[in-house]
Amino acid sequence: MLDLDTIQKLFEPLLPGLMGVRLTEVAPERVVGEMQVRPDLCTAGDILHGGAYMAFADTLGAVGTIVNLAPGKRTTTTDSSTKFIAAARVNTTVVGESVALHRGRTTMVWQTSVRNAEGRLCAVVTQTQLVLDAPA
Amino acid sequence: MLDLDTIQKLFEPLLPGLMGVRLTEVAPERVVGEMQVRPDLCTAGDILHGGAYMAFADTLGAVGTIVNLAPGKRTTTTDSSTKFIAAARVNTTVVGESVALHRGRTTMVWQTSVRNAEGRLCAVVTQTQLVLDAPA
Amino acid sequence: MLDLDTIQKLFEPLLPGLMGVRLTEVAPERVVGEMQVRPDLCTAGDILHGGAYMAFADTLGAVGTIVNLAPGKRTTTTDSSTKFIAAARVNTTVVGESVALHRGRTTMVWQTSVRNAEGRLCAVVTQTQLVLDAPA
Amino acid sequence: MLDLDTIQKLFEPLLPGLMGVRLTEVAPERVVGEMQVRPDLCTAGDILHGGAYMAFADTLGAVGTIVNLAPGKRTTTTDSSTKFIAAARVNTTVVGESVALHRGRTTMVWQTSVRNAEGRLCAVVTQTQLVLDAPA
Repeated sequence: MLDLDTIQKLFEPLLPGLMGVRLTEVAPERVVGEMQVRPDLCTAGDILHGGAYMAFADTLGAVGTIVNLAPGKRTTTTDSSTKFIAAARVNTTVVGESVALHRGRTTMVWQTSVRNAEGRLCAVVTQTQLVLDAPA
Repeated sequence: MLDLDTIQKLFEPLLPGLMGVRLTEVAPERVVGEMQVRPDLCTAGDILHGGAYMAFADTLGAVGTIVNLAPGKRTTTTDSSTKFIAAARVNTTVVGESVALHRGRTTMVWQTSVRNAEGRLCAVVTQTQLVLDAPA
Repeated sequence: MLDLDTIQKLFEPLLPGLMGVRLTEVAPERVVGEMQVRPDLCTAGDILHGGAYMAFADTLGAVGTIVNLAPGKRTTTTDSSTKFIAAARVNTTVVGESVALHRGRTTMVWQTSVRNAEGRLCAVVTQTQLVLDAPA
Repeated sequence: MLDLDTIQKLFEPLLPGLMGVRLTEVAPERVVGEMQVRPDLCTAGDILHGGAYMAFADTLGAVGTIVNLAPGKRTTTTDSSTKFIAAARVNTTVVGESVALHRGRTTMVWQTSVRNAEGRLCAVVTQTQLVLDAPA
C-alpha cells in the first residue's frame, strides 16, 4: 500500500499541492486530511469556495480508492455529488474525513465529510470511483 | 447587472483567480469561461484534476446566478452533481458553458458543460443555487 | 409532531402506499422503514428497480423533514443523489434508514441507506429539502 | 436493437408497468416516454411524488443504454442525480425525454428532462450506466 508520505509528495506539483491539502491519516477504509482556508481558496464573503470543498474531497476519496487497488489496476472518478451545509471562514482550517461506503472490484464509493474549525459539518461529498485495468 | 470585467476583477484574489478562470461571456441565461490546464491543476497522469472541473463549473454557475439576483438578494450553492466523461490533457485549454435550467425566486439551477480542446464533453456539472435575503 | 400511524395512513392513497412502504420508526433525527421487493417493484433480472430505491428513500427523507417542520412551514425536495451499490432480490425485504445530516431553518439534508435482507448496503440516497412558508 | 413494443411488453410486470410508463420513441441517442399523474403516483398536495420522477427517468435512461449495448453486455445504474424544479398536477400527463450525454464502452451517461402538461421543466435526472459483461 502506498504510504501517506509518498502520496503527499506526489501531491506537491498537482492541484492538492496548489491548494495545500495535507494528509493526516491514510488507511484502507478511511482517509483524513486538512486544508487551511487561505484567502485564495475563498469566494466572496471570506468563506471557503464551494469548488475548494469539492476538490479537497475528491482528492481524499481518490486516495482512499488508490490504496485499495489491486496490482495492475487504476481508478477514475465517474461522478461526485455534494451537499453544502455550512460555511468555513478564512484563516481557519477545515478537516475532511473520507470513509468507504463500498469497496468492490468494479466500483468503490467514498463519502467525505468536511468540518470547519468548530467541528460543524460544512459539506458532504459522495463519489463513485471506477476501477479499471491499468495500461500495460 | 454586474459586467464581465467587474466580476473578473473580483475573482483575482479568490479561488477562480488562483486557478486562472477567465470569463468570456456573461449573459442572464448563459455564462462561458475558459481555463488553461496548468500542471498544478492536474492529477496524476497529466490530466485535469476532477476537483478543478468542479471548481471551474461552480464558479460559472454562481456567476450566472449572481447576474440574475434582484437587489437585496444573495445566493449560496446548496448542491452540485458532476458526471465525469472524458479527460483534458495538461497544457491544453478547457471551455465551460453554463446555462440556466431554472431561474426562480427561491432557487436557480445551472448546468455547466466542460469541453476539452477537441470539443469533447469532459464533465457535466449541475448545481442548485438558493436565493436568500442579503444582510441589511 | 405527526406520529407514525398518522403518516402511514396519509401514505395509503399515494405512491408510498402503492409501493407498500411501511414506516417502523419516526423520530426527529431518524426515520426507518421497510418495503417488500414485490415482483412489480423490480426491473429485469428479478432485482429491485433503481427507481424503487429512490422513491422509497425520498419518502423516508421527506418524512424526516416533515416531523421537524415548525408550524406554518412546508417542504419540497430540491435535489436527490443516489449511489447504487448492490442488488436486492425479489421477494425479500429491504430496510431503509434515513438520518439527518443537517436540520436548518432554510434547508435540511437527509441521507438514507437502503440495505437488503443480508444487511448489505444496496443504495445511499442524499437529498436536500427546502423549508418554505406554507400557504396561509 | 430491441424495439419499442418489445421493451414496452417487458415493462408490464415490472415497476414501469406498475407506474404506467408508456414509451413513445426509442432511438440510440434519445428515448421519450410519458406517464399519467395518477393519484397513486402523487405525494401530499396532489402533485407527482419526487420518487415517481426518478423512477420514470431511471427507466428511460436505462432503455437508452440497453438499446446501445453490444452483444454479450449488460448494464447497471451506478448513480443518479435529480434536480426538482416545478410540480406536475394530478390527472395530467408528464413527458420525459432522455438524451445521451456519453455513450462509451465502459459507461454511458443519460440525462432525462421531465416536463409537465404546460411544457414546463419539472425535473432533470442525470444518471451513469456502467456497461458490464453479461453472464455467459
